[in-house]
Amino acid sequence: MRPGFSFHVEATTAGGRAGRLETPHGAVPTPLFMPVGTAATVKGIDIGRVAETGAGMLLANTYHLHLRPGEAVVEQAGGLGRFMGWPGPTLTDSGGFQVFSLAQQVRVEEEGAFFRSHLDGSPVALTPEFAMRIQERLGADVAMQLDEVVALPAERGRVEAAMRRSLRWAARCLDAHRRADQALFGIVQGGLEADLRRESAESLRSMPFDGYAVGGLSVGEGTAAMVSALQATTPHLPPDRPRYLMGVGQPHDILAAVAAGVDMFDCVLPTRCGRNSLVYTFDGPLRLRNACHAADQRPLEEGCPCRACLHGRSYIRHLFLAGEMLGPTLASIHNLTFYQRLMRVIREAIVAGSFEQVRRDLANRMAPAA
Amino acid sequence: MRPGFSFHVEATTAGGRAGRLETPHGAVPTPLFMPVGTAATVKGIDIGRVAETGAGMLLANTYHLHLRPGEAVVEQAGGLGRFMGWPGPTLTDSGGFQVFSLAQQVRVEEEGAFFRSHLDGSPVALTPEFAMRIQERLGADVAMQLDEVVALPAERGRVEAAMRRSLRWAARCLDAHRRADQALFGIVQGGLEADLRRESAESLRSMPFDGYAVGGLSVGEGTAAMVSALQATTPHLPPDRPRYLMGVGQPHDILAAVAAGVDMFDCVLPTRCGRNSLVYTFDGPLRLRNACHAADQRPLEEGCPCRACLHGRSYIRHLFLAGEMLGPTLASIHNLTFYQRLMRVIREAIVAGSFEQVRRDLANRMAPAA
Repeated sequence: MRPGFSFHVEATTAGGRAGRLETPHGAVPTPLFMPVGTAATVKGIDIGRVAETGAGMLLANTYHLHLRPGEAVVEQAGGLGRFMGWPGPTLTDSGGFQVFSLAQQVRVEEEGAFFRSHLDGSPVALTPEFAMRIQERLGADVAMQLDEVVALPAERGRVEAAMRRSLRWAARCLDAHRRADQALFGIVQGGLEADLRRESAESLRSMPFDGYAVGGLSVGEGTAAMVSALQATTPHLPPDRPRYLMGVGQPHDILAAVAAGVDMFDCVLPTRCGRNSLVYTFDGPLRLRNACHAADQRPLEEGCPCRACLHGRSYIRHLFLAGEMLGPTLASIHNLTFYQRLMRVIREAIVAGSFEQVRRDLANRMAPAA
Repeated sequence: MRPGFSFHVEATTAGGRAGRLETPHGAVPTPLFMPVGTAATVKGIDIGRVAETGAGMLLANTYHLHLRPGEAVVEQAGGLGRFMGWPGPTLTDSGGFQVFSLAQQVRVEEEGAFFRSHLDGSPVALTPEFAMRIQERLGADVAMQLDEVVALPAERGRVEAAMRRSLRWAARCLDAHRRADQALFGIVQGGLEADLRRESAESLRSMPFDGYAVGGLSVGEGTAAMVSALQATTPHLPPDRPRYLMGVGQPHDILAAVAAGVDMFDCVLPTRCGRNSLVYTFDGPLRLRNACHAADQRPLEEGCPCRACLHGRSYIRHLFLAGEMLGPTLASIHNLTFYQRLMRVIREAIVAGSFEQVRRDLANRMAPAA
């Protein structure tokens, strides 16, 4: 990896890796879960409270920040971290995923993605070179290559063509990227086709990326298919570089992906579910609007150190029923704290050599949020 | 005042009083500004952050809490303070003001106020006795008598009748109130009629209330009329009891009211304005949506210790334009911090004997929020 960055795997158990990623803004343990700060804010939570959840590294979305407030404003404020008041490491995605999920009138050509903003219809041409330029100005520690994302299920021909184009864009991103204090990760594509995933991983491996992401998953394919795709990918990635599974996921998906050799995750679920009154616990999720919580004075989870758990469930339920902003905020804080505690349990189990057992126990205790 | 409570005036300058109110949940300096936690939450701010603004005592609304979640839930949680996680003093209003401003099909008789909930249309009969019972179960340190509020402007006959009825309800509240660890305040009514205000104050003075509020003001009458009404009231209240001006107000109204002998205030303005992107500073308000703040990296106010002021104005403006919840939260935190700083400046000026000068200087610096 380039100067200022390093990644070391400290222990491996049952496929899971415990490591340490160093960046110019500090080091974070892996497996790592990054809260999502789409528009340079983890929704509803001030940045001091985000730190209190135990989060070490945050993600923000290039697509959103380019459209509003624009990378010039973020750069002028001293970069993404300064802008949002976060002293630790940060990562920006390339904008590719949002182009395909949010933008209007999207047209993808070899040159790049052409689309209109979902905010005001203004035209944007997102080329690999421009994606690098925007991310350099946003100034996160880690930037992501621009890739072409195909919605699944899709014909093999479409998946293959997008994977190949993503490889060509990977090379253009490497060429265009200038900022020495910013790492650049490549993104493996290939849908659910094992041979395409392998080809993508092997091709990217020969390029000097600082880390490798797995893209195009967590789009409804289910845990088993996701794990198959990962198993076709991670063995072909360099073992001394971090592996980042983008947009994942539910706790049980994270457990399975760690066992498939993944080091880094990001997902909107803890905050999005929190805003919708669903909170995670090690005994499965709670739906706070349910009447059974109306007079329940227990915290959301016994032993949880978060700020929400200073209150009884009855209070947080009341906030949701009354439409009070503090309900979503407290539930989001709890969920982010839960995710960080989950990652710590996973990491400690890998270090202790008990990951297989712990993984099974956790999966049994936590039913997936339906 | 009853055991567990005391009030001492420590200094008086130019009409303003600096004092100290002791309650079973701690002491607070006066002049005091109480943030409003309508539904047992200061909107958008977790209770730890509320404490960081410097707030010493919080207000919650009996009307709202009775309708949702109901006083039984709050009582079972250990009372209002426990429910919302606030270790300091609390006050509940009687619900009267909300009945007249929010409820449907309101009918006021000698027995009490009969109305339908604005939430679900269910019928409620709020008598003085029931207002006491609800507030005792909510368990704040200070409860308020039920009063009849008349919207201004109103005919003198209506104002006079409501003032007289409020006096009769005051006596019924005193009779009904049982809780020894909860203080009870009377409420002066009488609109803008000086002689009615005086009569109300003198009548209440002969009743054993622990403190005296001035109600029915800050309803659009303007600062001069408000001050006239206060000047007709405060000289006739016992000097050794706290005086509480309900629902006030803008910084310049607070300055004027302190000079007219008021000790306690509450108002939704700092949080309501904050949610609407208006922030207070000692140099007048800022409207954060204005384009002039787009690239302004200065904090909202130089020297403000609040969490919002860790960021540049450009960031907080961005949050509002992006519709992010954190914008209202940070602006509310800033405004509550501003109000507490304002009260501290006022108090220190009273103690130092410079209140008249400081009051003039502050009024000149801070233009009212139009």
